[in-house]
Amino acid sequence: MAKPKSIHVILSLLIIFTSALTSNASERSNLPSSSKWAPRFLGKYSHLTKPNFRQPQIRYETRYYDQSLDHFSFSELPRFRQRYLISTEYWVGPQRMGPIFLYCGNEGDIAWFAENTGFVWEIAPRFGAMVLFPEHRYYGESMPFGSRDEAYRNATTLSFLTAEQALADYAVLITELKRNLSAEGCPVVLFGGSYGGMLAAWMRLKYPHIAIGALASSAPILQFEDIVPPETFYDLVSNGFKRESTSCFNTIKDSWDALASQGQDNDGLLQLTKIFRLCRPLKRVVDLRDWLESAYSYLAMVNYPYPSDFLMPLPGHPIREVCRMIDGGPVGTSILERIFEGVSVYYNYTGQTECFELDDDPHGMSGWNWQACTEMVMPMSSSQDGSMFPAYDYNYTSFQEQCWNDFKVKPRPTWITTEFGGHDIKATLKEFGSNIIFSNGLLDPWSGGSVLQNISESIVALVTEEGAHHIDLRASTKEDPKWLEEQRATEIKLIESWIKNYHREKRGSFVM
Amino acid sequence: MAKPKSIHVILSLLIIFTSALTSNASERSNLPSSSKWAPRFLGKYSHLTKPNFRQPQIRYETRYYDQSLDHFSFSELPRFRQRYLISTEYWVGPQRMGPIFLYCGNEGDIAWFAENTGFVWEIAPRFGAMVLFPEHRYYGESMPFGSRDEAYRNATTLSFLTAEQALADYAVLITELKRNLSAEGCPVVLFGGSYGGMLAAWMRLKYPHIAIGALASSAPILQFEDIVPPETFYDLVSNGFKRESTSCFNTIKDSWDALASQGQDNDGLLQLTKIFRLCRPLKRVVDLRDWLESAYSYLAMVNYPYPSDFLMPLPGHPIREVCRMIDGGPVGTSILERIFEGVSVYYNYTGQTECFELDDDPHGMSGWNWQACTEMVMPMSSSQDGSMFPAYDYNYTSFQEQCWNDFKVKPRPTWITTEFGGHDIKATLKEFGSNIIFSNGLLDPWSGGSVLQNISESIVALVTEEGAHHIDLRASTKEDPKWLEEQRATEIKLIESWIKNYHREKRGSFVM
Repeated sequence: MAKPKSIHVILSLLIIFTSALTSNASERSNLPSSSKWAPRFLGKYSHLTKPNFRQPQIRYETRYYDQSLDHFSFSELPRFRQRYLISTEYWVGPQRMGPIFLYCGNEGDIAWFAENTGFVWEIAPRFGAMVLFPEHRYYGESMPFGSRDEAYRNATTLSFLTAEQALADYAVLITELKRNLSAEGCPVVLFGGSYGGMLAAWMRLKYPHIAIGALASSAPILQFEDIVPPETFYDLVSNGFKRESTSCFNTIKDSWDALASQGQDNDGLLQLTKIFRLCRPLKRVVDLRDWLESAYSYLAMVNYPYPSDFLMPLPGHPIREVCRMIDGGPVGTSILERIFEGVSVYYNYTGQTECFELDDDPHGMSGWNWQACTEMVMPMSSSQDGSMFPAYDYNYTSFQEQCWNDFKVKPRPTWITTEFGGHDIKATLKEFGSNIIFSNGLLDPWSGGSVLQNISESIVALVTEEGAHHIDLRASTKEDPKWLEEQRATEIKLIESWIKNYHREKRGSFVM
Repeated sequence: MAKPKSIHVILSLLIIFTSALTSNASERSNLPSSSKWAPRFLGKYSHLTKPNFRQPQIRYETRYYDQSLDHFSFSELPRFRQRYLISTEYWVGPQRMGPIFLYCGNEGDIAWFAENTGFVWEIAPRFGAMVLFPEHRYYGESMPFGSRDEAYRNATTLSFLTAEQALADYAVLITELKRNLSAEGCPVVLFGGSYGGMLAAWMRLKYPHIAIGALASSAPILQFEDIVPPETFYDLVSNGFKRESTSCFNTIKDSWDALASQGQDNDGLLQLTKIFRLCRPLKRVVDLRDWLESAYSYLAMVNYPYPSDFLMPLPGHPIREVCRMIDGGPVGTSILERIFEGVSVYYNYTGQTECFELDDDPHGMSGWNWQACTEMVMPMSSSQDGSMFPAYDYNYTSFQEQCWNDFKVKPRPTWITTEFGGHDIKATLKEFGSNIIFSNGLLDPWSGGSVLQNISESIVALVTEEGAHHIDLRASTKEDPKWLEEQRATEIKLIESWIKNYHREKRGSFVM
């Protein structure tokens, strides 16, 4: 029986990945401090990141809204300053009912998301749209209780960090803003990627009077309870390797035992330190294992068909490259040496890194870990056969204990599906709701928990075989493959149809 | 300039009326104590009530569910016992996907609603349906903090009395109950009248994955902000009198000055005490005015075309009867004597009352007053011409001050429309949502704030010219007019179609 792996790592991948996608070195210092649940490398390696294409010129104003801390009770609570970024540069204004593009900020600094959601900025001019990026409470600068330290002090101060409160923040903010601009008649279109995509889809469902449609990219709204099998995520990561090379998959699968066995040797930890060129002596094998697992999971998410540079500079088809290294070592190379060569593609593609920091020092609580321990309970297992990771059966009891230890909070594992649905989503939404695009790339391991089939005529799934995690939301590049251009063109067409339809209805009601 | 009338009276009518509709003498002792905002007669006159027709035989079990106090934050809070009534007598069970009829409890003891919503009980057998009446938090026995006194202690303890929390209560309860019964596949249909009807409609919109449709009877979901003119309610009450007799309308309209002028005489209060046969000397004219205004408003709501017996035993077309008395006094009868004869139809139709108690002693807080002072901010004015009531312009500032004085709470007057919508509802829901019936009778003054036009093929308005406040939900009687029978038949047909459609879809998905 294999040892249980650190299930918490993956629960944090959603945030870490999106943060990673959207951060750059100079802003990293503002990142929520990572905890033992999160991959450790985020802050360390980000300075290696150098964009390989120009972001579109993004200009916005930063403003703040005095927001209610609790929308659903009338407790006497201090309000907080919610940051939002706004650009009216291309907006045609209220008279012409110019649309408002609202990106549902997710678990990170909103400026990063704004800078890394080029799609919205690129299409705003052709729509004459206002662009709005409100920040998610408890992230970036939008801290209740005056500071991050106070907001993250304990379960009481953190208790208002929920998706419903964040959605209500957006609803109140946009309603107020439209009122101030006499823009009540302007249609709002929602955008979001990853957790932000979940928020966009949910907001369209819960606040149809506020937004006419949503583009929810890589939004795993079905990754809850028993809606999809708990093995889905790791099986998909593993498939990404298997499709490149069975022997690569097998080598990784075998490596965990090799790692454990090496760790048990007399000078095992020292040997591992050497093999993996760690900057400091390895203390526990599990830290190295987490580091490797994170690399594979991230690789699956950013397995784009062209060179990219998010958390790490990577070649196109990075998994192919990793497997080439793992499979291609000279005769006599050990499993672990091959593994090292493989993950070096991820951690050190530029070759500039002398040694690696695992950063296994747990410190502080992170916002997403809190969310994972309260509402966002996503069961994750690693299957015996389909997964190249150590086998692990999701165990709610130990998850709950961990949450209690870390936050003194009790998760509500069935709440998200009670509040937002998920089971039998096709039957529910077939004749209810409209105007949602669920876009997904099948290489993205999060796609397994997303909506991959059309639900109705206007709640549609855009699925790309070769796509990974919400690449459609990023700025276009000269290297974009045809299918990506087509995907974005379809998205634009659908959004256009929502707005046209809205304008037609509005004009109709003026005549009435 | 006429003196402002007590705007708070009307804000409480919604609750008081529905409570009145659904209470009987023996249970009255559990009623939330009335406040100075509520009409005073509720407790006093209820013992006069004698049903003039048999309620259908209602059998249910009373159960309790250990409910979260705050669904939208993770604060450490005590849970509370939510009462619910359940009958599985006619339920065909989970194998046959027997439907579940869920009445969204409103602001009162749930047993009263169960006893006075005969329609649901009558149709349950033909649908093979389970019947469920969950109680609204902070009413009846469903008291947080262990008791009514504790729950109503102050703004902090009351702060969780909101519509969103109540809806989440229902969502959690039904989800849990279905899971325990392995009845996940059974469709839920929502019912509700008045505020309960608002909850039913909102629940269908917010929780489409939980309920397949809603019958929202007399649900004034548009009585917020500026969606309908603030004069609507009182104008409709007044119309109910004007349509019977212009002179009756005029006499009432003139009576306020007569009342004020009489009150200013030397022995004016004593004279008024005599004219209105009050049990105790009148202390302030305003108390008598409130008593009269309440009678007119209630009369408009229960202006049914056949004898009924809710709060008061009344003849059919009771306003016609009131006006007959007001118009028909012998020559020389003063305005105030005519008014007394008129309202005696309401307060003393049986002729058994020797003297009248105005009960002008304000004591305690009521749940609906809290709700009116927080979320349920319904602006109400009385117009100069269209209304027979003293003219009054809604003044938010003084309303807010009153709420602060009474509860130390600040209303959120734009919250309900932000959370649930309302403005431009037709455009919003035309291509979003399905399966809601908004039923209304045009004699009901609350109909002016309700949905009176079809929104889409399956979000429909059933409007009856001669109907009053949610009579369709009551048990059938031998005296039911044709239009009421037809209305109920249409409701049944629509509910049938929702369920059939659901079963068809489900079978389809089994095959898939």
